[in-house]
Amino acid sequence: MMGSIVSLCKRRGFVFQASDIYGGINGFWDYGPLGVVLKNNIRNLWWHDMVECPPLDKKGNPLRILGLDSSIIQHPSVWEASGHTSSFSDPMVDCKATKIRYRADQLVVYVSKNIWNNGCNIGVITGEKAFAFFEEEEEKVVSSKIKKLCRKNVEDFHRVLFMDIDLSFYKNIVAPDTTEVGTLTAPKAFNLMFETRVGAVVDEKSVAYLRPETAQGIFVNFKNVLDSTKAKIPFGIAQIGKAFRNEVSPRNFIFRSREFEQMELEWFCHKGEAEVWQEFWLEQRLSWWKNLGLDASRINIRRHEQEELAHYARGGGGTRDIEYKFPFSGEGFSELEGIAHRCDYDLAQHQRVSGVRQEYADQAIGAKFIPHVIEPSSGLTRAVLAVLCNAYTEDEAHPSGFFMNFRPQIAPVNVAVLPLQLHEGIGRLAREIFHELRKKYIVTYEDKQSIGKRYAKNDEIGTPYCVTIDFDSLQNMDVTIRDRNTMKQERIGMAYLSERLRGLLW
Amino acid sequence: MMGSIVSLCKRRGFVFQASDIYGGINGFWDYGPLGVVLKNNIRNLWWHDMVECPPLDKKGNPLRILGLDSSIIQHPSVWEASGHTSSFSDPMVDCKATKIRYRADQLVVYVSKNIWNNGCNIGVITGEKAFAFFEEEEEKVVSSKIKKLCRKNVEDFHRVLFMDIDLSFYKNIVAPDTTEVGTLTAPKAFNLMFETRVGAVVDEKSVAYLRPETAQGIFVNFKNVLDSTKAKIPFGIAQIGKAFRNEVSPRNFIFRSREFEQMELEWFCHKGEAEVWQEFWLEQRLSWWKNLGLDASRINIRRHEQEELAHYARGGGGTRDIEYKFPFSGEGFSELEGIAHRCDYDLAQHQRVSGVRQEYADQAIGAKFIPHVIEPSSGLTRAVLAVLCNAYTEDEAHPSGFFMNFRPQIAPVNVAVLPLQLHEGIGRLAREIFHELRKKYIVTYEDKQSIGKRYAKNDEIGTPYCVTIDFDSLQNMDVTIRDRNTMKQERIGMAYLSERLRGLLW
Repeated sequence: MMGSIVSLCKRRGFVFQASDIYGGINGFWDYGPLGVVLKNNIRNLWWHDMVECPPLDKKGNPLRILGLDSSIIQHPSVWEASGHTSSFSDPMVDCKATKIRYRADQLVVYVSKNIWNNGCNIGVITGEKAFAFFEEEEEKVVSSKIKKLCRKNVEDFHRVLFMDIDLSFYKNIVAPDTTEVGTLTAPKAFNLMFETRVGAVVDEKSVAYLRPETAQGIFVNFKNVLDSTKAKIPFGIAQIGKAFRNEVSPRNFIFRSREFEQMELEWFCHKGEAEVWQEFWLEQRLSWWKNLGLDASRINIRRHEQEELAHYARGGGGTRDIEYKFPFSGEGFSELEGIAHRCDYDLAQHQRVSGVRQEYADQAIGAKFIPHVIEPSSGLTRAVLAVLCNAYTEDEAHPSGFFMNFRPQIAPVNVAVLPLQLHEGIGRLAREIFHELRKKYIVTYEDKQSIGKRYAKNDEIGTPYCVTIDFDSLQNMDVTIRDRNTMKQERIGMAYLSERLRGLLW
Repeated sequence: MMGSIVSLCKRRGFVFQASDIYGGINGFWDYGPLGVVLKNNIRNLWWHDMVECPPLDKKGNPLRILGLDSSIIQHPSVWEASGHTSSFSDPMVDCKATKIRYRADQLVVYVSKNIWNNGCNIGVITGEKAFAFFEEEEEKVVSSKIKKLCRKNVEDFHRVLFMDIDLSFYKNIVAPDTTEVGTLTAPKAFNLMFETRVGAVVDEKSVAYLRPETAQGIFVNFKNVLDSTKAKIPFGIAQIGKAFRNEVSPRNFIFRSREFEQMELEWFCHKGEAEVWQEFWLEQRLSWWKNLGLDASRINIRRHEQEELAHYARGGGGTRDIEYKFPFSGEGFSELEGIAHRCDYDLAQHQRVSGVRQEYADQAIGAKFIPHVIEPSSGLTRAVLAVLCNAYTEDEAHPSGFFMNFRPQIAPVNVAVLPLQLHEGIGRLAREIFHELRKKYIVTYEDKQSIGKRYAKNDEIGTPYCVTIDFDSLQNMDVTIRDRNTMKQERIGMAYLSERLRGLLW
């Protein structure tokens, strides 16, 4: 099914491979005419529900959430304080013979798979490209096979499987693209931040990074936002923007790309109230995703295990993920959003490294302290993919064999106005309707091709309603509304059309 | 006046120095809670007027404009084809003694100024920091002084002023931070694109750039957009997004920054109609800027001289700039938007470099050709600055001595709801009004501080209308609307409030 979705995305203009005419660039995607509108609609919905009309508190008052838009390039000390410079990395192994670089854990999977398939020992594994084994699903299959093997008491596998490996391991294996042992180096940390240089002079001071997350832009602005708004805790700062990660193997279409968009809220509160707020935001965010149109049955909540918690989340209530069952998720689910308790980690780190106090003065209790943070952090580009996958509905009865079941509110086109024939009177009436409707909705006007092809196209791009104008319309001043999902047609007087669509669309 | 605006921006949360707690990072800015809303409002207005409700053609039909959102990082061949790799650069001169790098043309200004001030010859100029001379205004003053001097027939200056300099010039001058001649190298091209590396393997193939303009993302997607939408020329592709330029001396607040946002339309048309379309778009864009609230008297249109035209614009109808008189523009104006005739330069270049045909098949005339392009290209972040500067209105009668005269439609807050006293009944009524109004507008609710301070604050952030609820409101069910500009107050029945505000705001 992913194949059909990726192909639809290119054919209809949702998502294109970036730099397509140059053979593409791995891990980067461009959003076409429909994709950019779908993405904007989702982004605007999040911004509306977070910043413009945030949830209400128990007293019925709206929570205070302030917007922000910080730079992609920040002072390098920001990433020292956050821990990204030292620890946002994958362990990589270089092959001295081929100059190819491998992710250490994926080499382990590669070796394990070879042992499993060929029964051979470490040190005599040969040939075969590693990349075929680098897909997530493959890894899962291999892991589960190895687990079974471990139960059969083949001791060596334990070490391999759980990465509890001494460095000589890499010296004893044959890399995927060579035939002899001894070409691999010990693993080195490979930082996932994209590095660049700022200013005309190139020296150590000029190094800068593309942000790997939008969150730190919020933390470094905490004091400025506090001072300029006089906000009282609990309050939040919300941001939507691009982030960049130099993923070693980007995959699954726009799910894991090197340039992506995040929607993040940092919610500042008293330490003692953090866990209650984490529950609150988990509930809020869960209903937001459902309201986006995702099937509840494909959504899962997962509590992070203690050992997989990020360094900033170890002291508090942990992290809960909201996951979605994508076509590539296999038996499981894949992450859409994490709701983390970041404790006071980030603000405390920035206070330590910058020397600028990050405390909040609580006049009600006469105390100064660094607030704790609950962070609902989600991927906008992942949201687009989840919405695309969820909307894709196969149905033999539809002319294209499927339709895109977008919620009308986020569909890239709300209404298509379709004059049945190329006829002057019909055209004039259809254009009148078009001009009237486009004041309120995203509307297209299409008079080329047969009506069947136009319906089929609108099914494929997920237009919830087509309005058709025909010869009868000229006499009776009525038109047809066609429903995308049921394909049922309803005849309605033109005078009631706008009102009727409002009922259907909102 | 720029000082007051910059200080207001920090104090009230429009714009902060990026990484402020780390001493900032030169050329980068963060948009605070009010700034992000102001920027979004301007962005949404452009998108609405370009993509959602584009202008009408002569027949009264809307022009066809498709949206796009392409990656910041593209395949490096994109920038070879566009000419950015080879020619998007400033000439830079290194000082071997101090390792400081200077922009060659700014050294010329520095030298010229020293000659003018001290009457001394090239080769004996010493001391004084160059950076003080690098401000645009300074340059203009110096240039005009030198121009006068040239008229007095001091021959050497002609060469200096018009950059018609042989390379030995730099060998004969004393750099600003040294005391002897001979430390400067010949000028070398310094590319303004930020460079990074993509993927785990570092070699020549891994080099990539942050886009210096959004335009090329449109050109490389021309074929994909054409194929997926079946658009017929003339039509446009529009994009809003970030762009990055490693400016040697970023300046004038957010006017010339290293990370900024562009709003670009590429309008594809027949070669023979390009000049007419250029006039059309110039008119359209001019009225858009006026509709944004900018004073017509501060707007200027400037036709580029033949010798300053960019390489892509030399064959066609040239480039017209829409300029605005910023506080730092001195006697002149500074660029807001360029409306360039790019001819078929970009698509032809991409066809040549990629080998993928970029022609449009015109069935009406049975011919294939590469369309010509008219490009209205403007800066979103410059638009924010123009709106801020234009809105700043000094007035003794206002409590703060000034107010921000934003057009109500783009003001970051439309309405402030202010209960006069902290009183249960008043609070309840005020909150009811607040909840009602926030369904339609961006509304704040403020019950702290004296009413005078709250009015003053809302003048400073440009809230066009304050609605005040008092004891009389409880009895008479009426409220006060205060007008930001006139400070006049109007008493109105609560039942008519929403309707009245709609009239005032839209």
